[in-house]
Amino acid sequence: MAQKLPKRTEDFAAWYNELVKRAGLAENSSVRGCMIIKPYGFAIWEKMQAILDQAFKATGHENAYFPLLIPKSYLSREAEHIEGFAKECAVVTHYRLKKSSDRQGVVVDPEAQLEEELIIRPTSETIIWHTYKNWIKSYRDLPLLINQWSNMMRWEMRPRLFLRTAEVLWQEGHTAHATREEAKQEALQMLHIYDKFVRDYMALPLLKGIKTEHERFAGAEETYTIEALMQDGKALQAGTSHFLGQKFAQAFGVTFTNQAGQLDHVWGTSWGVTTRLIGALVMTHSDDEGLVLPPRLAPIQVVIIPVYKSEAERRLVVQQATTLRAALLAQGVAVKLDDRDTHKPGWKFAEYELKGVPLRMAIGPIDLANHTVELARRDTRAKMTISMDNVVGTIQKLLRDIQDYLYQRAVDFRETHTTSVNTYEAFKTVIAQKGGFVLAHWDGTTETEKKIQAATKATIRCIPLDASPETGNCMYTGKPSRQRVVFAQAY
Amino acid sequence: MAQKLPKRTEDFAAWYNELVKRAGLAENSSVRGCMIIKPYGFAIWEKMQAILDQAFKATGHENAYFPLLIPKSYLSREAEHIEGFAKECAVVTHYRLKKSSDRQGVVVDPEAQLEEELIIRPTSETIIWHTYKNWIKSYRDLPLLINQWSNMMRWEMRPRLFLRTAEVLWQEGHTAHATREEAKQEALQMLHIYDKFVRDYMALPLLKGIKTEHERFAGAEETYTIEALMQDGKALQAGTSHFLGQKFAQAFGVTFTNQAGQLDHVWGTSWGVTTRLIGALVMTHSDDEGLVLPPRLAPIQVVIIPVYKSEAERRLVVQQATTLRAALLAQGVAVKLDDRDTHKPGWKFAEYELKGVPLRMAIGPIDLANHTVELARRDTRAKMTISMDNVVGTIQKLLRDIQDYLYQRAVDFRETHTTSVNTYEAFKTVIAQKGGFVLAHWDGTTETEKKIQAATKATIRCIPLDASPETGNCMYTGKPSRQRVVFAQAY
Repeated sequence: MAQKLPKRTEDFAAWYNELVKRAGLAENSSVRGCMIIKPYGFAIWEKMQAILDQAFKATGHENAYFPLLIPKSYLSREAEHIEGFAKECAVVTHYRLKKSSDRQGVVVDPEAQLEEELIIRPTSETIIWHTYKNWIKSYRDLPLLINQWSNMMRWEMRPRLFLRTAEVLWQEGHTAHATREEAKQEALQMLHIYDKFVRDYMALPLLKGIKTEHERFAGAEETYTIEALMQDGKALQAGTSHFLGQKFAQAFGVTFTNQAGQLDHVWGTSWGVTTRLIGALVMTHSDDEGLVLPPRLAPIQVVIIPVYKSEAERRLVVQQATTLRAALLAQGVAVKLDDRDTHKPGWKFAEYELKGVPLRMAIGPIDLANHTVELARRDTRAKMTISMDNVVGTIQKLLRDIQDYLYQRAVDFRETHTTSVNTYEAFKTVIAQKGGFVLAHWDGTTETEKKIQAATKATIRCIPLDASPETGNCMYTGKPSRQRVVFAQAY
Repeated sequence: MAQKLPKRTEDFAAWYNELVKRAGLAENSSVRGCMIIKPYGFAIWEKMQAILDQAFKATGHENAYFPLLIPKSYLSREAEHIEGFAKECAVVTHYRLKKSSDRQGVVVDPEAQLEEELIIRPTSETIIWHTYKNWIKSYRDLPLLINQWSNMMRWEMRPRLFLRTAEVLWQEGHTAHATREEAKQEALQMLHIYDKFVRDYMALPLLKGIKTEHERFAGAEETYTIEALMQDGKALQAGTSHFLGQKFAQAFGVTFTNQAGQLDHVWGTSWGVTTRLIGALVMTHSDDEGLVLPPRLAPIQVVIIPVYKSEAERRLVVQQATTLRAALLAQGVAVKLDDRDTHKPGWKFAEYELKGVPLRMAIGPIDLANHTVELARRDTRAKMTISMDNVVGTIQKLLRDIQDYLYQRAVDFRETHTTSVNTYEAFKTVIAQKGGFVLAHWDGTTETEKKIQAATKATIRCIPLDASPETGNCMYTGKPSRQRVVFAQAY
């Protein structure tokens, strides 16, 4: 039996890291900050992609593909954008290697230096708006609703699997509109699509809100965000949707003739989620025994493990297990029968517990005699013996129950870890001792925000979108405030 | 009406380039050699991906993701591999930009130089075999069947849309096996999967064969290839599958304990197809009016265009068109109703002809009165008036007919453009005047192959896999030969 995982209560970071590796989700590569997404982790990403892609297309978006490399000068066009991204860019300077003088290795060929350096995209607004200039002439060309599934790169100094990596897989939507109002609606629509996906599939409740100026995307007029709460009481930004105003249209000269025949700049949005969602999934539901995956995203929803002693028993048990597998597959349940002879049932039980398979079915000679199977839920670890008669229906219901249970548990956790405070003293105590989301009044200035962050490491996660207005006084400066904002320490 | 395309017979290259751009498949970006795949082109790639991905998974392969960047030293580990790829590598040397001294732009920060340069993957054998070293210990870990969908980069000096680009979207499979025989079978299995896909979906007949040593993948023991013939008589390599032997296992020290308890090196394969397939699709079926897409890969299989004069007519015609669209959608037909008021029917006819939509349905007041619709086939340009009664069934049959017709036409073209020659004089004449595949005897040496290439620009596309053996004499040197090989000028 493999060594146990570190405990969450003792070392959350070590627990997370070990879990991601041992469950077969991902591992570090020898290229600093770049991870290898292993088949089991990638299968989760493929499920996420399929669901989101369908939601994007259902709202009129089309996929396209833009270049990986962006000319350095493009990044500088939008002043805030370059400020935000220059510090973390991978730069291509040459296009050829040659034999080293000792002929043992290769070196960069100094004669193959690029005239202008190329940057591996940290995000694609610049090259896409440069392209949109040629695609958009008239209001008839709008809206332009494009999404791209791709890799991007930001040079992270303290990488962590899924949460912060140099290379990231993601989708980035980039849309162009004729009016401010329509672009704002688009940015909000995509936020709601993310929210629905995370809630319904990842079983994760979110806060929807607006970022402060300090936390805003470099080049956006407004950034909308979905914020999740992890089991260690830290917040995690799960996705963002930006209303770009006319900033990129102005930077790249993208104009159109409106219905009145006048020339105007185009309004833009961009929005994205990344493989970071997998990190959020792991940190929300899993426990000290391993992963806990919500059924709607689990690559394997049910694993069937035959239990037997003799070869005669094995034959009968595997035969019945094969029949059950076929019945489940026919109903669209993602089922795996692990009938390998090389591993004992106990080893397999631990393995699929570590991998977070929502339901485990064990079937042995006694089950055959009794016309039953034994089921074990991964979430509650409850075991039950059920009749073989309606096993498919029972399993389908249990999978729905598990999905609901995980969501409700996450909602409960968030509720017990959301605290309203009225004084800065109380704020500091809650941040230091309890963690979680802290609702407090703030005077609206970046100056105050930075001071609070410097003292407590807590940042403003968002100004909630659907909170009821409540006037008050900033807990730090006492100046007036129109609404509580949400603070937390964050990933 | 837009300007007509260049004619294929007058300037095939210009025809291709204009067609790809005007049909909305792709365009050049401002980064040399990197193209922008536009939504219509990307929709074709998504269809290709979905079909291939399913075939890979049905044969036990799983998807994963490995880093974009490869340490320079890894590329040198396998001697032939670095020879093959060093000349065309994009090299990352720095990881940060900073404000230029005039503060107007940004420059590369000289203090942020990498200790070891990183190469944007030209292919991932090196980083993947470096990883497999940790994943494979015993025969129980084999076979390891992994595929990756990703981008890669080879610095092309003469880029052409889809056919030769610096950045390429592709899939690369990398598998590891316990025996030589099993790895060879895997490489051949994947070649057959490619062949079936290209034949059944792209409607394109292929030659399957083995590459000569000279044309082999850098680092492979054997390269299998599928070769297609384009309308201008040039060959196009549509995909390759490599039997790597133990070369990469040796270069990266990947060993396993076999069933007899002995340590041995692992056997490998790799195989890939790229967005180049879209170029092959265009160059095989299209004509001087525009794209011709086989129905099984067409993003839009049927376009419905309402024809009317008055607003009253418009309402009735669009109503009927909407009903027909629903009926087609319900049967899984990819149908688009273009009821835009901003464009005339004639403009739309030309537009969807340019875009290669297999079937066009026009419906007007007379059709309503007669209970008919008018259909036009894109491939033969035949028009027919059919009853509305079984319009869905008729369309489904026509789509199958078009798919079959395109395949048969491509087979016929290839047959009339395949020539057997016995003398070098005849060879040179055929290559210069007729083009196509030329079957000839060759003495098996790279020396002869290179001389023929230098004189005629024809290369050996493959040594066919399923040709009947036939002894003869090399057309160039007169030395003995056991089999005819296939020459052609190629993309």
